[in-house]
Amino acid sequence: MFKKVLVANRGEIALRVIRACKELGIKTVAIHSEADASGLHVRAADERVCVGPAEAALSYRNIPNVLSAAEITGADAIHPGYGFLSENAHFAEVCESIGVKFIGPTSENIALMGDKAKAREIVAKRGLPVTPGSPGGLKSEQEAIEAAQKIGYPVIIKAAAGGGGRGMRVVNKADDLGRAFQAAQAEAKSTFGNDSVYLERYFLEPRHIEVQIVADHRGHVVYLGERDCSIQRRHQKLVEETPSPAVDEKLRREIGRTAVEAVKAVHYRNVGTVEFLLDKDQNFFFMEVNTRIQVEHPITEMVTGIDLIKEQIRLADGEPLSFKQQDIKLSGHSLECRINAEDPEKFTPSPGLITRYSAPGGFGVRVDSAMESNALVVPYYDSMIAKVITHGRDRQEAIARMRRALDEFIIEGIKTTIPLHKRILNDPDFQKGHVSTTFLDRFLAG
Amino acid sequence: MFKKVLVANRGEIALRVIRACKELGIKTVAIHSEADASGLHVRAADERVCVGPAEAALSYRNIPNVLSAAEITGADAIHPGYGFLSENAHFAEVCESIGVKFIGPTSENIALMGDKAKAREIVAKRGLPVTPGSPGGLKSEQEAIEAAQKIGYPVIIKAAAGGGGRGMRVVNKADDLGRAFQAAQAEAKSTFGNDSVYLERYFLEPRHIEVQIVADHRGHVVYLGERDCSIQRRHQKLVEETPSPAVDEKLRREIGRTAVEAVKAVHYRNVGTVEFLLDKDQNFFFMEVNTRIQVEHPITEMVTGIDLIKEQIRLADGEPLSFKQQDIKLSGHSLECRINAEDPEKFTPSPGLITRYSAPGGFGVRVDSAMESNALVVPYYDSMIAKVITHGRDRQEAIARMRRALDEFIIEGIKTTIPLHKRILNDPDFQKGHVSTTFLDRFLAG
Repeated sequence: MFKKVLVANRGEIALRVIRACKELGIKTVAIHSEADASGLHVRAADERVCVGPAEAALSYRNIPNVLSAAEITGADAIHPGYGFLSENAHFAEVCESIGVKFIGPTSENIALMGDKAKAREIVAKRGLPVTPGSPGGLKSEQEAIEAAQKIGYPVIIKAAAGGGGRGMRVVNKADDLGRAFQAAQAEAKSTFGNDSVYLERYFLEPRHIEVQIVADHRGHVVYLGERDCSIQRRHQKLVEETPSPAVDEKLRREIGRTAVEAVKAVHYRNVGTVEFLLDKDQNFFFMEVNTRIQVEHPITEMVTGIDLIKEQIRLADGEPLSFKQQDIKLSGHSLECRINAEDPEKFTPSPGLITRYSAPGGFGVRVDSAMESNALVVPYYDSMIAKVITHGRDRQEAIARMRRALDEFIIEGIKTTIPLHKRILNDPDFQKGHVSTTFLDRFLAG
Repeated sequence: MFKKVLVANRGEIALRVIRACKELGIKTVAIHSEADASGLHVRAADERVCVGPAEAALSYRNIPNVLSAAEITGADAIHPGYGFLSENAHFAEVCESIGVKFIGPTSENIALMGDKAKAREIVAKRGLPVTPGSPGGLKSEQEAIEAAQKIGYPVIIKAAAGGGGRGMRVVNKADDLGRAFQAAQAEAKSTFGNDSVYLERYFLEPRHIEVQIVADHRGHVVYLGERDCSIQRRHQKLVEETPSPAVDEKLRREIGRTAVEAVKAVHYRNVGTVEFLLDKDQNFFFMEVNTRIQVEHPITEMVTGIDLIKEQIRLADGEPLSFKQQDIKLSGHSLECRINAEDPEKFTPSPGLITRYSAPGGFGVRVDSAMESNALVVPYYDSMIAKVITHGRDRQEAIARMRRALDEFIIEGIKTTIPLHKRILNDPDFQKGHVSTTFLDRFLAG
């Protein structure tokens, strides 16, 4: 087993990884920027190295500095957490080349899955369901009409070079396609300097469903149920839960097996998450693979009992999976609320000194955080400061427990999104499990 | 459902009950002595009433004051926690008579099980195994010899009126019985003024195994696995775990069914614990029934997912059990370490101001405590200030997690038993699960 792991991250996930290492008897090295010298993750580790100034590009994302820290401390492996260098194929490759184990998938896995179009293509070739769409750019209105007919309405026209909603047009019926096609082309041209557009099936109120997978070096892959992460604001997840209220045993097995097939297609290793869209008719479509441990991994841990970080470390060390698919029993229901240091109405960042911090506790409540009284929330990084995770025998108990936990949570000195979470948990649609990726926009508008 | 519950306790168990009530949407009333006015359990409740000065007899055990508090706040039920009034049949009876629901067994249940000799007799009459012994006092040496022959050596001679180890003699073979009988008689006479002695089977290194049961008003009883509480100091439990390393599936079912039979014999209601001795040959013997929620209940919650306090409240409200025996699946392994405000070597109390308190957290770690930084540990009550509970996929993981959690736990300003727990967890015999009720004495001596 590794003797010493360098944790190339900060905050709650760094503390999470350090705790896992301690349970495995592995020494830890924390890295930190100049802004984080007094952080809890720094004090929790056996050793600490400052890797640069506050800006992440100069510290946590600074590959030479992070590797130097590993070298001077004699770390034999690096855990990247999420964000920062976790999905940087080059970093993973350099680690491999200098004999420091990167705790994660192979650099090839990361590179391949980082190219979303390529990933989609590989998965589609295996006969697995991907969002229906035109294979490439559309040359004419006629081609668009034919493609739309094949896909079925509504469709969305997207700029091939686009992003951020520009050059997009939703089309509900064939009559409207011509005009929308021309408008999208024109907007794509003027915005991106490239008038290539393509078509995709447009989903009304889809759910974001993702499957946690774990894979060992022998090619054994197990799925650990799904997570429903439909409650998002601008593609940032706010509330996650497992199991999904929309997924039954049969669908769970189907999506799970599809996720396993998808990652087997690229000889995937270590842990990963396969993201799907689920439409109202229970059809699911592959979106992408996240080649890292995810923020919301704890809810899967709560219902499976499996420590995903310890599993990651063991798998990176060459151990085979410690369980088989048939060993996986999901018990109860788990929710996670991400608490951000933000104004809960305007979503503007709210860094500053936490004058008082008192986390909730008791049966079925877990708080993953590196905050404490007198901690400073610095403005340089992600605004998430705590994850409140609850586990109950059923969804209703997990919700009741979350409401109780959020009521108990005291964070003074800065603004947080706790009030928003309380409102969401109080919403009748949420309580019934009637949510989709459009839920939060409507909720905030109403 | 109850509208308002008065919690007739303090510290961690009061907070535990308040949390359960909040999840059920029930308002809470805390009571407190003058010494506890600033306690966390007091602030956590919706209302609070001072019931007297520091001494428990004048406050927490003061029946008229506790009932007045219920009356003036309009509480419709009282949860007694453990200790204090929890096993006071008279209190339960008075509650019943004034129409305030006592959240626990009936006053008859408490009275009956409080008479240990009677409880033993009832259980033996049902054909269930109780510790073999002479039924009453022995009249002569000859009677003692015959009884010992029937019971089998070694035996222990005990003073009928005795306690505290006086008048006791362990006898390993028939040749030694005569002298020991006379010596025990003489000592009983001189110590207690009563020379009546009786015989019991003497167990070498037994385990303390107890079974959690839950019973509804329809007479349905379910057992929730066993707890191994063999690590004791002067009959005070220090470390508890479930499942017991000494109990396999078959034995679990046998002890569980025996526990269910035992409580059915007295029409038991609500939650309770049936305590057994387990000898080295896997024979188990009924000892007694504890008619309260126990300190160590969380470990059963961790492996069953069932919130025992919420179940208690629902059962007291007349709801039927929310599960059947076949629904109970034990998953993983759980440990509890009781952290006392004591010198970890001399076991002398260590009250005082906690200048810094930082509890461990993360996956699989639960801390039940009402302590915080700047809390005062007062000398009037039990010295237990926190329970660290861990849950793992197996015993090894639960132990690794506990060691990690104890390392993380910071309590400054007073002495605690954390260092003792660390030493126990590091002991090879403990790690192998080779423990008995004599473990701790040997451990402390060696």
